[in-house]
Amino acid sequence: MYPNLLQKRVALTPNRAAFEMNGKTWTWSEVYGRALTIAEKLPIKEGERIGFWTKNSESLYFFLLAAMLKESEVVLFNDRLTEEEFLYQQQDAEVQLTLTESSDRARLDNVFLFREVEEGIPNPFTMRPQWNPDRTISIMYTSGTTGRPKGVRQTLENHMSSALGSALSSGVLPEDKWLCVMPLYHISGFSMIMRSLIYGSALQLHTRFEVDAILEAIEHDGISHLSVVTTMLGQLLEQYEKQPFPIPSMFRTVLAGGGPVPASYLKQAQSNGFPVVQTYGMTETSSQTCTLLAEDAIRKLGSAGKPLFFAEVRIDGEEEGEVWVRGPHVTPGYIGAAAHIDPVTEDGWLKTGDIGRIDEEGYLYILDRRSDLIVSGGENIYPAEIEQVLVGHPNIQEAGVTGKPDERWGQVPVAFVVLRPGEELPELDSYLGQHLAKYKHPKEIRVVEQLPRNASNKLIRRELKKWL
Amino acid sequence: MYPNLLQKRVALTPNRAAFEMNGKTWTWSEVYGRALTIAEKLPIKEGERIGFWTKNSESLYFFLLAAMLKESEVVLFNDRLTEEEFLYQQQDAEVQLTLTESSDRARLDNVFLFREVEEGIPNPFTMRPQWNPDRTISIMYTSGTTGRPKGVRQTLENHMSSALGSALSSGVLPEDKWLCVMPLYHISGFSMIMRSLIYGSALQLHTRFEVDAILEAIEHDGISHLSVVTTMLGQLLEQYEKQPFPIPSMFRTVLAGGGPVPASYLKQAQSNGFPVVQTYGMTETSSQTCTLLAEDAIRKLGSAGKPLFFAEVRIDGEEEGEVWVRGPHVTPGYIGAAAHIDPVTEDGWLKTGDIGRIDEEGYLYILDRRSDLIVSGGENIYPAEIEQVLVGHPNIQEAGVTGKPDERWGQVPVAFVVLRPGEELPELDSYLGQHLAKYKHPKEIRVVEQLPRNASNKLIRRELKKWL
Repeated sequence: MYPNLLQKRVALTPNRAAFEMNGKTWTWSEVYGRALTIAEKLPIKEGERIGFWTKNSESLYFFLLAAMLKESEVVLFNDRLTEEEFLYQQQDAEVQLTLTESSDRARLDNVFLFREVEEGIPNPFTMRPQWNPDRTISIMYTSGTTGRPKGVRQTLENHMSSALGSALSSGVLPEDKWLCVMPLYHISGFSMIMRSLIYGSALQLHTRFEVDAILEAIEHDGISHLSVVTTMLGQLLEQYEKQPFPIPSMFRTVLAGGGPVPASYLKQAQSNGFPVVQTYGMTETSSQTCTLLAEDAIRKLGSAGKPLFFAEVRIDGEEEGEVWVRGPHVTPGYIGAAAHIDPVTEDGWLKTGDIGRIDEEGYLYILDRRSDLIVSGGENIYPAEIEQVLVGHPNIQEAGVTGKPDERWGQVPVAFVVLRPGEELPELDSYLGQHLAKYKHPKEIRVVEQLPRNASNKLIRRELKKWL
Repeated sequence: MYPNLLQKRVALTPNRAAFEMNGKTWTWSEVYGRALTIAEKLPIKEGERIGFWTKNSESLYFFLLAAMLKESEVVLFNDRLTEEEFLYQQQDAEVQLTLTESSDRARLDNVFLFREVEEGIPNPFTMRPQWNPDRTISIMYTSGTTGRPKGVRQTLENHMSSALGSALSSGVLPEDKWLCVMPLYHISGFSMIMRSLIYGSALQLHTRFEVDAILEAIEHDGISHLSVVTTMLGQLLEQYEKQPFPIPSMFRTVLAGGGPVPASYLKQAQSNGFPVVQTYGMTETSSQTCTLLAEDAIRKLGSAGKPLFFAEVRIDGEEEGEVWVRGPHVTPGYIGAAAHIDPVTEDGWLKTGDIGRIDEEGYLYILDRRSDLIVSGGENIYPAEIEQVLVGHPNIQEAGVTGKPDERWGQVPVAFVVLRPGEELPELDSYLGQHLAKYKHPKEIRVVEQLPRNASNKLIRRELKKWL
């Protein structure tokens, strides 16, 4: 058994800063008080699910903690989903209700405003001082080869071992403060709440990525850790060099996820005192599996580093092959329509779909992402999901999607389509807008005669890359 | 499952400093290499026990790691035991063999010199990459009310949760270096080896407590953590004030065990920049259960602090009562003659025998030590053990032992004896020297007419305190 994380945290360090947002600060004691008040009003029982469909906000933070106190499972829907995408996921997750900040969304079935709950009548409940390690804390949807998003469970044990492994890798100090600009509906953001509870470090939450606000926080607010994706890092460094300031000694770690950081950024980061720690992780591994420490960043350029203390990585092949991951941070599985899928082998290995190699010193290099995954500005985009929407249009017969390098976003999706006989390429904006979150829209659509397919008629997406 | 600690550590940080002694330094890669070489020569199999009867030494460090690699259980005998005491414990522990640095000891049955093993022929063995959390890592003998020392098991899970809880309390950084002057045959010393493996921090090992050597290490060697007992702290501060030097910023923590640190020491420590973190723990809890952070030291004078992240403490009583401890760091039990004793209740609580209270903010205060335990210069002394030896002498009919405050050692044992009719108090030095480690010898023996006993004729040791 593990302790009730928030109750234990407030018992240990009630007066330490816990949460900062929009210039306000809450101690652990204040955070606990407010989360408890909300928990008493949440119309859900232990083991039931509650959804959240919003950007980072004060309400989201406190409601997530409240739901945890009540031992319900939180389902974090991507704020950028279309209604159609959301409705599918909400139904699949069988949530009791979903909360949002948007009146427009709150007109949907089972969707309510945070305010509506806060105005409700409190019902005291019995809180457990200990939590089961196998308890599902959070659920996030991620797509895959099939195109249908699957709800991934992250248990308390997953989060605990991830947080402890990360602490042993990068260090932890009682006065640490993490700046969270990543969405809480992604594991990179949500895991910062879990670390904060376990480490007792403070969390400064931002709604969106604003370069100036982040630099100001680094300069003035005692930030020790920042988590970003590569594209954000580039913008931060560019702006920093225009108006540099002395980097405070407590600013120890910039975690960078979503693919290797280019050498030019790394050198720029090093010369400016931004200690970049690159990571390799995914929703199914409750964030980090591997970490490349700042001291190795240049020597092991392009590497994702070594597996954390409780994690294992192996390559299924002689030299190159599929990356397999094992450890207490690996999800026990999915919910809803994908509940029957076992994510790991009999021996507990998760087959990531990514292709990689491990060098003689034990450093992992990712050579190709799973299912031709496209990583665009920190969002994972699965080609199959876009292809399914495209072929749903009456004019389109076949579709193949791949990622194209992009200076700003890292990658953007590009589509190749085969039209139905006699049809023309239509204007697709409103059609796509209805079915796909904006960030998944192809930035370019090319009409071709036929798509590259193998003998069993399966699309060879890697061929598409060569066509770009 | 947990990773094979040494194998994982060397995979993660092969070139980082791991071990320092007598001016020499070994990296993790070098430590692993030497431990493996020794492991191949150790004449023990998985699950078997090997004893060590020596002071801190280079050999002891490497042989402990070698034995761990072989998944054997290490039994750490107090270096100060008499032959008689040692022989009892060695037999009780059923070790395959015991290793020592002393030729004199090596003439005993089953006792060998480290050198004899190192000169042997290597036998390659299969090493497991993962270790079972329930595996017994170490065994240490501790006495109790009965007077017969019991071998306490400490599992991998015990050590792991202790190390992680300690890291979350005091922080951990990749460049940390612990100075170990505590005996490795005590949990306070041995747990530093475990932390070093788990944190990847370096360990500087000293054979004995020498004030100048410790101060020099703090000044020049980049020490971050030091673990001492109260009496050592006093001597360190006294000498430091004679020849002060700027305290390096990386010197973050002085762990102080064995009872509360007096206010005068705390103030002296604070004004000199020695951050004293007081702890409460015992062999049965793999070191720390509670920790009082330096920031609370003055405000909560005399307190042992709050339970670590994975630990729980409760008082069996209204306000004051027996201190009960629960958590993954609590021993699963004993070996040998005491194997049948279950140390915990059905709910997993360890009844420590100590008397305490918890204040309204959750801080633990120890009011009286278990079984009238005498803590003398960091060694636990159990009155019953001394009493049994005393009444074994033909002239002595009854004996009662208690602790007397002592400026240098904290406490020293004092004996009250009732002589057999017509007998005189004999010279007891050689008799005691044969049966009891020197530190357990009563510093004073008073002849009395009778001892304080209750209705059921049980000795009331607390009465003896009043007689002092």
